[in-house]
Amino acid sequence: MKRIGILTSGGDCQGLNAAIRGVAKALYVEFKENVEIYGINDGYRGLIEGNYQRMKPDDFSGILTLGGTILGTSRQPFKLMRIVDENSVDKVQCMKDNYKKMKLDCLVILGGNGTHKTANLLSGEGLNVVTLPKTIDNDVWGTDMTFGFSSAMEIATNVLDCIHTTATSHGRVFIVEIMGHKAGWLTLHAGIAGGADVILLPEIPYNIDSIAQTLDQRNKRGKRFSILAVAEGAISQQEAKMSKKEFKAARADMPYPSISYRLSQEISERTGQEIRVTVPGHFQRGGSPCPYDRLLATRFGTAAAKLIANKNYGNMVALQNGSIVPVPLCDVAGKLKGVPKDCEIIQTARDIGISFGD
Amino acid sequence: MKRIGILTSGGDCQGLNAAIRGVAKALYVEFKENVEIYGINDGYRGLIEGNYQRMKPDDFSGILTLGGTILGTSRQPFKLMRIVDENSVDKVQCMKDNYKKMKLDCLVILGGNGTHKTANLLSGEGLNVVTLPKTIDNDVWGTDMTFGFSSAMEIATNVLDCIHTTATSHGRVFIVEIMGHKAGWLTLHAGIAGGADVILLPEIPYNIDSIAQTLDQRNKRGKRFSILAVAEGAISQQEAKMSKKEFKAARADMPYPSISYRLSQEISERTGQEIRVTVPGHFQRGGSPCPYDRLLATRFGTAAAKLIANKNYGNMVALQNGSIVPVPLCDVAGKLKGVPKDCEIIQTARDIGISFGD
Amino acid sequence: MKRIGILTSGGDCQGLNAAIRGVAKALYVEFKENVEIYGINDGYRGLIEGNYQRMKPDDFSGILTLGGTILGTSRQPFKLMRIVDENSVDKVQCMKDNYKKMKLDCLVILGGNGTHKTANLLSGEGLNVVTLPKTIDNDVWGTDMTFGFSSAMEIATNVLDCIHTTATSHGRVFIVEIMGHKAGWLTLHAGIAGGADVILLPEIPYNIDSIAQTLDQRNKRGKRFSILAVAEGAISQQEAKMSKKEFKAARADMPYPSISYRLSQEISERTGQEIRVTVPGHFQRGGSPCPYDRLLATRFGTAAAKLIANKNYGNMVALQNGSIVPVPLCDVAGKLKGVPKDCEIIQTARDIGISFGD
Amino acid sequence: MKRIGILTSGGDCQGLNAAIRGVAKALYVEFKENVEIYGINDGYRGLIEGNYQRMKPDDFSGILTLGGTILGTSRQPFKLMRIVDENSVDKVQCMKDNYKKMKLDCLVILGGNGTHKTANLLSGEGLNVVTLPKTIDNDVWGTDMTFGFSSAMEIATNVLDCIHTTATSHGRVFIVEIMGHKAGWLTLHAGIAGGADVILLPEIPYNIDSIAQTLDQRNKRGKRFSILAVAEGAISQQEAKMSKKEFKAARADMPYPSISYRLSQEISERTGQEIRVTVPGHFQRGGSPCPYDRLLATRFGTAAAKLIANKNYGNMVALQNGSIVPVPLCDVAGKLKGVPKDCEIIQTARDIGISFGD
Repeated sequence: MKRIGILTSGGDCQGLNAAIRGVAKALYVEFKENVEIYGINDGYRGLIEGNYQRMKPDDFSGILTLGGTILGTSRQPFKLMRIVDENSVDKVQCMKDNYKKMKLDCLVILGGNGTHKTANLLSGEGLNVVTLPKTIDNDVWGTDMTFGFSSAMEIATNVLDCIHTTATSHGRVFIVEIMGHKAGWLTLHAGIAGGADVILLPEIPYNIDSIAQTLDQRNKRGKRFSILAVAEGAISQQEAKMSKKEFKAARADMPYPSISYRLSQEISERTGQEIRVTVPGHFQRGGSPCPYDRLLATRFGTAAAKLIANKNYGNMVALQNGSIVPVPLCDVAGKLKGVPKDCEIIQTARDIGISFGD
Repeated sequence: MKRIGILTSGGDCQGLNAAIRGVAKALYVEFKENVEIYGINDGYRGLIEGNYQRMKPDDFSGILTLGGTILGTSRQPFKLMRIVDENSVDKVQCMKDNYKKMKLDCLVILGGNGTHKTANLLSGEGLNVVTLPKTIDNDVWGTDMTFGFSSAMEIATNVLDCIHTTATSHGRVFIVEIMGHKAGWLTLHAGIAGGADVILLPEIPYNIDSIAQTLDQRNKRGKRFSILAVAEGAISQQEAKMSKKEFKAARADMPYPSISYRLSQEISERTGQEIRVTVPGHFQRGGSPCPYDRLLATRFGTAAAKLIANKNYGNMVALQNGSIVPVPLCDVAGKLKGVPKDCEIIQTARDIGISFGD
Repeated sequence: MKRIGILTSGGDCQGLNAAIRGVAKALYVEFKENVEIYGINDGYRGLIEGNYQRMKPDDFSGILTLGGTILGTSRQPFKLMRIVDENSVDKVQCMKDNYKKMKLDCLVILGGNGTHKTANLLSGEGLNVVTLPKTIDNDVWGTDMTFGFSSAMEIATNVLDCIHTTATSHGRVFIVEIMGHKAGWLTLHAGIAGGADVILLPEIPYNIDSIAQTLDQRNKRGKRFSILAVAEGAISQQEAKMSKKEFKAARADMPYPSISYRLSQEISERTGQEIRVTVPGHFQRGGSPCPYDRLLATRFGTAAAKLIANKNYGNMVALQNGSIVPVPLCDVAGKLKGVPKDCEIIQTARDIGISFGD
Repeated sequence: MKRIGILTSGGDCQGLNAAIRGVAKALYVEFKENVEIYGINDGYRGLIEGNYQRMKPDDFSGILTLGGTILGTSRQPFKLMRIVDENSVDKVQCMKDNYKKMKLDCLVILGGNGTHKTANLLSGEGLNVVTLPKTIDNDVWGTDMTFGFSSAMEIATNVLDCIHTTATSHGRVFIVEIMGHKAGWLTLHAGIAGGADVILLPEIPYNIDSIAQTLDQRNKRGKRFSILAVAEGAISQQEAKMSKKEFKAARADMPYPSISYRLSQEISERTGQEIRVTVPGHFQRGGSPCPYDRLLATRFGTAAAKLIANKNYGNMVALQNGSIVPVPLCDVAGKLKGVPKDCEIIQTARDIGISFGD
């Protein structure tokens, strides 16, 4: 009898339940019912505190289309707290102890970049770990795609679509702020799909005067409106030259709730145009997964089950050139997959006249 | 040959084009092609400046599902500027002159509360006017329903749905700010349809301690999360007692971009719970109209054409108890249809345990 | 302690779970937990066979947006089988016996026209019954609206929208068959909202030559395509003159799976145009309820709880002129609310040039 | 001054306008306005008949989200008619003549498999041709993905989702027939994403007894319902052994409008279960393109413009391993990309217990 634990960690996204279902269904088929699956609650916190329950096959039925995660999730355990907490409790040791107490053969972990650091740490401590890359940011190193990304892209694009109808009616400048602090994949894809005129990414620092010039030129060409798709993590070219400390200080002094409001002020001053800001925020990661994410999550889930069957631990399942492959956790941990400035899709955007404000 | 002008004024909403199409198609059928329709651009501004064009039947084809307005729109002309502007130009006289120059038999105006004040003024000046009530706020007096409302409700509810999946996964307090400065219809309807636990409306001033208590009780009953649907125009019970001047001053000093951020701070202080704010903003009024709005806008449009055929001017078309009826503009202008505190739907919400923070 | 049974009967539709939730939440609030709710499985069949279970408050959480019914449903018990079945079992007596055995104070029944006949029968037999009108057909007598209708209308309209883009590209005649054997509400509403050119309803028998003429005229006016929204139950003027027996015989001989295929053949013969048939079928009643249906179902649910609290049995809750009112079951049973030929919405359609083929 | 013609041919699908827009915008940027674009109407028919018009930049604005094709389309010219028609008109010569008369530098053709045969023929006749692969079937050889496929997959999956809620409520066997006569990609992807229990593809002939056995086993395991996703082109193992002629004859005698109805009858006979058939039909290819298709179509469009700039004619643009590459038309023409029986996604489906009826 195999005993497999499963947990979801970090911010939730679409497709987590589809992936959990994929892992479970494939395990039941693979081991012909000779497997017990344990759901660990609220991410690593549940593993630290020993909060889990035995799952039944029925628990995985009807969750393919369900947003969020039936297991609950929580932030990374080492971000806000030290590894050894204020009561001198060693959290890594707690996780190892509970893993042993649960007599697990393998722990399946679904998460993004932060989650993978911890997963790699646990793997290094001798636990059998297999992971699945999830995040709406698509910034996990080693995989062409994470689940959650496509669903979030559909929501962000839909927001741009809705803004478009108002923009054509009123004729103004509109800023839509799209999730993504460190990576601009979501803003790039949704920006093109949603017909944005300017796209600002963390990877391509912008020049505010260049943006103002672009908007003025559009005005002169008789364009009634302009739409900017702006990543949460967009930065100016001046900011790009700052040290981390200088940047933090500068942003802390910024009298705006987010970058879009600052842009709005700066552009308005330069162009005299009226500007509207929309911040759809974190509902970009809620709701039912789109069909693509359901399929990708299912593929990742079944691949994870195969890795377990083959005792091929210490790996993340990844999509590379259309195929699912294992990638060693030590290769993934601590890296971030940003948008390369010369990538094909950036070029596509430039080819149809989209400006990146650079 | 009849000559009919048509303009859309104020903030755009879903269904404007469906209504324009309804007016036009019904006019063409009614007058057997003996009618010329003139599209006046960008609301009253186009009438003031004489900016318009002759429309062809084909211009009204394929716009049933299109968001925004093909005629463009602009803010009320008297809100930001005086009736006689800085160049001593009398804007009302301009509108009258252009109406005459265009030899119009009737002017069809689509708009919300502000628009209806001006429409009534023009009607009082002797122009033949027929109006259609549009707004996502559903706060036009004299009609049970405005088009735009149902479509916006679907978007706002969808946001609440998406937040729900994250809320069940993470377990926190979430605030969703829904459009509506003066009337709470949208927040009330979307709040119930989206399964909110607390609903705050402009019409029912809230007590912050009462809200905190509700959230604490939910926590004690084992509820993992709470969702608040908050109207943009929600006010506290203290604020409700202020004079207009005091209120404006107090809000001007508020160090938050909107009420939701203040609530977030105040609730967090009282309950110690982590809170997330989402402000979907004005894309609630963009995108394709929902089927209900298309039908309602079409009904309004054909009713307006009938009023013109019967020379029954000076009226707004309205929905009352399922039927379309004319309502005199002088009855509509200057009024606002807020949510009565004892209305059935408020009671429905209370009956299933939703709190209004009062 | 109150004991309330609840069952859903007949074809499922959107909003059943929202209504079940509304009833339950309002009962728990009303009776301050002094109430036990019993879910009866698979409609009347569960009451006949004594198949039910005690529900917990948690069972009603998270089902507001869920399509279908958590209680299961089945066809009317008297449609396929006699009241006294082949084993001499009297099914009505079984239901009465189980009602007593369960010691119910009231039975809440959600269903359409067939369901209401049985509900009225049970009420006549002395059972305390309160009902809620559900159906995508909106044909329950005594209520302006049933839940399920608006959601189905959105799906049917969306099908018409999709067909439109193909129609404008290819230029042909398209027939979309919309649910509704006896009542044309769904076809009428979706037909207008989806921009159909011809609408055929059970209530307005069509003349095939009149339809062909309409299509020819559109062709001559340069219209590239035509779209027909056809109710499942559409009938020709010849058929309208037949006796029930003659009609059944004629249709039994019809070498087409449904009316749309026959229309396709007949129109093609008369106009020489190429015709495409789409039969979206019964997924029109699946999926998540639209926000309007969630709100309506919740209002019906809380109203049912109020009736129970007031021991006001033997009623269906209904929407009349925007308010929820009780309607005696004996008034509802055996009736059907069809589309009146002279109703306002029919007139709206004619006003914009839509043909009903008559 | 460059002169570029553009046409769309074959069945329409989502993303055609996004692709047209991509080609045009990239051409205007590439040639700095020194380019004239000619829209050829209704596919090859427009080229044969010389039916076209000069396009303005504005014609390509606002069409990113629009379904269908603004250029119109028509069937392949050689499918129903000979190359030399009944009036001895050589259609290929007509196309060559019109190409010359229009003084085109290149002809951009958007289409599927049939379209590519003709495009290759024209290329062989000396015309400069660049093509884009469009089809909801994703069966064009040489590209990992065609636009239209993802949008159709979303619609087909949504139908399965809706059927699911009815299936869980009623408990029956449901068959959903999904487009795809020769290739099963759409059924395979939507089937997994929509949670189907059995998937039947043209590429994997089914054994009816095996299907019946699968359904019986599900019944015995307490599963209330089963859903079959069936490609239009699904065939039985007996039929797979027939000659083309025998197969055609057998199908011509089939007293059912499509394969799903035959399956329904055969399964019902074997299992005694009640079965419902849904045939969503060709609205699977209508409506607004999903964000993925808009992006893919835009990428293909800009790549086509680059090929023209580089005079790299005679190619189809294709997606291979995430990059856009040119593929010679002569390699594409006459081939079909079916689902390999051993492909990863088939294996994924088997891994979670989905049956292919083999």
